[in-house]
Amino acid sequence: MDNSALMWRTVSTELVADCKVFSVSRNNSRRAQDEGEKLHSFYVLHPHNWINVIPVTAAGEVVMVEQYRHGVGHVTLEIPGGMVDPTDSSPVDAAVRELLEETGYVSDDWVSLGRIHPNPAIQSNVCDTYLARNARQIEQPSFDGSGTEMIALRLVPIERIPELLKAGVITHALVIVAFHLMQLNGDALT
Amino acid sequence: MDNSALMWRTVSTELVADCKVFSVSRNNSRRAQDEGEKLHSFYVLHPHNWINVIPVTAAGEVVMVEQYRHGVGHVTLEIPGGMVDPTDSSPVDAAVRELLEETGYVSDDWVSLGRIHPNPAIQSNVCDTYLARNARQIEQPSFDGSGTEMIALRLVPIERIPELLKAGVITHALVIVAFHLMQLNGDALT
Repeated sequence: MDNSALMWRTVSTELVADCKVFSVSRNNSRRAQDEGEKLHSFYVLHPHNWINVIPVTAAGEVVMVEQYRHGVGHVTLEIPGGMVDPTDSSPVDAAVRELLEETGYVSDDWVSLGRIHPNPAIQSNVCDTYLARNARQIEQPSFDGSGTEMIALRLVPIERIPELLKAGVITHALVIVAFHLMQLNGDALT
Repeated sequence: MDNSALMWRTVSTELVADCKVFSVSRNNSRRAQDEGEKLHSFYVLHPHNWINVIPVTAAGEVVMVEQYRHGVGHVTLEIPGGMVDPTDSSPVDAAVRELLEETGYVSDDWVSLGRIHPNPAIQSNVCDTYLARNARQIEQPSFDGSGTEMIALRLVPIERIPELLKAGVITHALVIVAFHLMQLNGDALT
């Protein structure tokens, strides 16, 4: 399908705010097909790329985390995840690091479940999701030392996930995406 | 489960940036259980609440939209959706309005599929998803007049959705969530 009529061209961009875990820029853009058309401003969020991990133990339990989320102002039930740091050599390296830091778990059986856009309308980053099979705990969680991470571990039998989604206990879009990708990849996982 | 040890209290908040479709604030917060602990800053995005619609025709086609997305800088394939405006009397009213504006379609068979958090870590808003069954086109799309909306309609047989997800053609997290919620509600839809 020819999408050229839908394209835009960014003429200039400027930093609006630097907010630690993301920055905000304003792009001044016009339609690609019409040089004469006027410029419009679009605000874009630039977080680092993100990773999420579904760690599943040999007993069929998902290693989940409960933590206070400052966006919504309450505690949520999620899977481990975080940012790809500049010191991570790849997204899966970031996933291995985050899983260990947040939960103390490791796995030697990692499966990539796919890459998605958290929000292509206003964010530039991608999120990679991984399944970590046969996950086992080798140490206690080690938080990042900033004093802002405090996480409670919850082992949830994997067959309970659909009811937790239906009941509105699991509400984080990227966590729901992770479980959907795991299901889509079902054939490849056996 | 007692989550009180995980809670935080926001002491003050200030506007960092007003970016049209969202604002950014900085919350200065401390752990709820320790008055003496020092304040930490957390940046939070405040968009309006959002809605998404899966419109399905009597022929079993999903009415999808292709549009340029300024966050990622390319054209994406999505379902109709948008913000709940202050003039919408409810989220489903916003969904009815957005479906008509973006596609010219209507439905008299709306089903709520659930409410999720697009990103509880850094965003305060929620997103409601609806299924619009027996969708039919009554007019051409009417864009908002700002000159920034330009949308191409694509009718996609519903059975093709999983392969478009697997192939990375559909990548928007909230669209993937919508299809997952539709599947979770499968029993209630028949």
